[in-house]
Amino acid sequence: MNRDLKQLRQDAIEIFNAGLKPVDPATAIRRFVDLDGEVLTVADRAYSLADYENLILIGFGKACAAMARALEAVLGGAIRKGAINVKDGHSLPLKVVQIQEAGHPVPNQAGVAGTRKIIQLLEESGERDLVLCVISGGGSALLPYPAQGLTLQDKQQVTRLLLECGATIHEINAIRKHLSRVKGGRLARLVYPSTLVSLILSDVVGDDLDSIASGPTVPDRSTFDDCLKILNRYDLVARVPENVLAILKQGAAGVIAETPKEGDPAFEKTQNVIIGSNALAVSAARDKAGELGYTSLVLSTLIEGETREVAKVHAAVAKEIRLSGNPVSPPACVISGGETTVTIRGKGLGGRNQEFVLAAAIDIDGLDRVVVLSAGTDGTDGPTDAAGALADGNTVSEGRGKGLDAEQFLRENDSYNYFRRIDSLLITGPTYTNVMDLRLILVA
Amino acid sequence: MNRDLKQLRQDAIEIFNAGLKPVDPATAIRRFVDLDGEVLTVADRAYSLADYENLILIGFGKACAAMARALEAVLGGAIRKGAINVKDGHSLPLKVVQIQEAGHPVPNQAGVAGTRKIIQLLEESGERDLVLCVISGGGSALLPYPAQGLTLQDKQQVTRLLLECGATIHEINAIRKHLSRVKGGRLARLVYPSTLVSLILSDVVGDDLDSIASGPTVPDRSTFDDCLKILNRYDLVARVPENVLAILKQGAAGVIAETPKEGDPAFEKTQNVIIGSNALAVSAARDKAGELGYTSLVLSTLIEGETREVAKVHAAVAKEIRLSGNPVSPPACVISGGETTVTIRGKGLGGRNQEFVLAAAIDIDGLDRVVVLSAGTDGTDGPTDAAGALADGNTVSEGRGKGLDAEQFLRENDSYNYFRRIDSLLITGPTYTNVMDLRLILVA
Repeated sequence: MNRDLKQLRQDAIEIFNAGLKPVDPATAIRRFVDLDGEVLTVADRAYSLADYENLILIGFGKACAAMARALEAVLGGAIRKGAINVKDGHSLPLKVVQIQEAGHPVPNQAGVAGTRKIIQLLEESGERDLVLCVISGGGSALLPYPAQGLTLQDKQQVTRLLLECGATIHEINAIRKHLSRVKGGRLARLVYPSTLVSLILSDVVGDDLDSIASGPTVPDRSTFDDCLKILNRYDLVARVPENVLAILKQGAAGVIAETPKEGDPAFEKTQNVIIGSNALAVSAARDKAGELGYTSLVLSTLIEGETREVAKVHAAVAKEIRLSGNPVSPPACVISGGETTVTIRGKGLGGRNQEFVLAAAIDIDGLDRVVVLSAGTDGTDGPTDAAGALADGNTVSEGRGKGLDAEQFLRENDSYNYFRRIDSLLITGPTYTNVMDLRLILVA
Repeated sequence: MNRDLKQLRQDAIEIFNAGLKPVDPATAIRRFVDLDGEVLTVADRAYSLADYENLILIGFGKACAAMARALEAVLGGAIRKGAINVKDGHSLPLKVVQIQEAGHPVPNQAGVAGTRKIIQLLEESGERDLVLCVISGGGSALLPYPAQGLTLQDKQQVTRLLLECGATIHEINAIRKHLSRVKGGRLARLVYPSTLVSLILSDVVGDDLDSIASGPTVPDRSTFDDCLKILNRYDLVARVPENVLAILKQGAAGVIAETPKEGDPAFEKTQNVIIGSNALAVSAARDKAGELGYTSLVLSTLIEGETREVAKVHAAVAKEIRLSGNPVSPPACVISGGETTVTIRGKGLGGRNQEFVLAAAIDIDGLDRVVVLSAGTDGTDGPTDAAGALADGNTVSEGRGKGLDAEQFLRENDSYNYFRRIDSLLITGPTYTNVMDLRLILVA
């Protein structure tokens, strides 16, 4: 099979697009939710609408307008009322459900107002109501509701302090959950005694329900005691805002209720369903690669780590394929998912996907018939209008021909401007979904 | 197949040991060198010893005493004389060849003295002599011979300045070669008009002959002009020692001869043979894994990058195998080779292999029936007496039980002390070979 670079690039884009299909909110909702007469089926459970007085829709997250719209389409007039929080500018026309636009990634007062509206709906509902909740990436920032006596700024300051100390994401989440009135399973308790069905588009490596949007509808495994230990571990007791420490201490003393745990009655009336995930996108991408004649290999859907180092490992795999036919023979498509991080040292413009592709381009410089693509499934990568970028073995020399030094652009975290200048950005516009990133290596 | 952890660990060690076999210097020499009566065969070429007056053996590198010993065994009394430079303490008893112990990784005057001895042998030899040269990792530091008017310290200072500026290894090598009287093909020219056969144990990712031991027996692609450009690029013109700048300028002006290039007559009488490489070790490890019932997958023999980030990618593959059977179904053995780097931030004791295993251990914490092994094929990892270490899903909790915080040890680059305390170091002693590292992930 002789595939030129242009064809390889087209194939890479086609494989990426195929990956988006099953995680499109409308497709994903329709796969798991079906209404047949009075019977609402969600995954493996059936709900007879005759048993419920009201069907209420709530939600939060970057993709949740599209999820709500799909539910309105599937359920027709059955939804009585609803309210969702979406990111600024991410509204879509809905029939019944009210939309509140709010700040993301930094939560704002509009978010708090929207959360109040959601809670008000829940307060009006009772044992014979059914609450559908759509959750997607960004749901944590888009459902802000600090504990009594706290401000958004207090929570942000604690998060910042923890990040600076090198606390793990689990430690940070434990404290966040205990400073919120809706996270860590508390939303499920607010829904109770209504029945709750959560439809979740996962943007978290490993699809840990506890982590997606800070787990508002699942049991929390952490405690107020854990939170105080974490502050001690990082010497933060004297550095966090006083009211934060007061709340954690009151919680540990039993004055404020713990987050709900496994066995809480609220969870007996809760169904959590992951309707879309990175693994699903990766699987669809693999199928498409096979259709196009590539031997495909899924490296992992759980890739994390510093972007440029992760890129080196991917490039090493590409080079090995060319050298020895390991781990798979050409024409080959290696696929990985998950989400990497970027330690920003420069002043340029870019995102983790574009940085991945630039770092990989440097490593595969001069290699024949190899194409690398990395892009965010939500269609945005960092603060840019691109979803990601493409590169091949000529990318570095192409830049050099235009006076661009790829290494220098990488040092400056300026991948966007590099790929813009050589016309290799991948621009998709908003995809209305969000299941982290896809990375593709094609070797013909 | 039900394999408990103890069995998995034993299998990992057996697979690692199998990887060492084909790169053992004696085995590797015997595979490529054969003497049948008067006919000496080296790889695909035959030399009739009747055509030569003297057979001379030279060499440098950490493994070259064992290589020389193997050649003495294969060639019997045919070797007339010889001299090699080895690392302090790495001598082995030889019959004819003289051994000079020298400094490594920092070259010293003993190394210069040994190099002089080698050059003297070459000066005494002529058109009808055959020179066998054994080269292995560490050969660059173990063949020090600065250009006229330079000291070892001058060269080291330039290298340090270049490293600090973030120059690439190719840029550093270009300058090193032009400040040496033996690197960058110059040794081949010193051998000329004798015939030269170089037997090389590669310790370089990708086995680039130009890079192994600074390519003393291969054409150099860089020039004095390049060297001046590199100094300019990093603003080092005014910062390097004056005599260094003087030599590079004289070279660029044609006063000092260039390093020999492709087409130089010396290379027409030169045969370079890689007798052992990381790929060979990886391939043998794969065969052994197959024998033991694992489905094996070679990820890449070209792995580079920051150790703890590379470990994250390997751990993500391990988790994916458990989760979905991708990229290979259990019982699986994923193998990778190459050599990673460690940015030292802490004050602990360790090496890249032990750090890899500690970082991976944190990521696979709690995972069932998974074992990770990483070790240097030379039997030493960093400034420790261990070759590497082993870990499994219990490694972090085992440490915790002894009051050890794995994350804290990783932050301190103190992997050696972590694994020592939980008795999971891999200690092999010197293996007398050196083809970088092997990493194994076993998932049962």
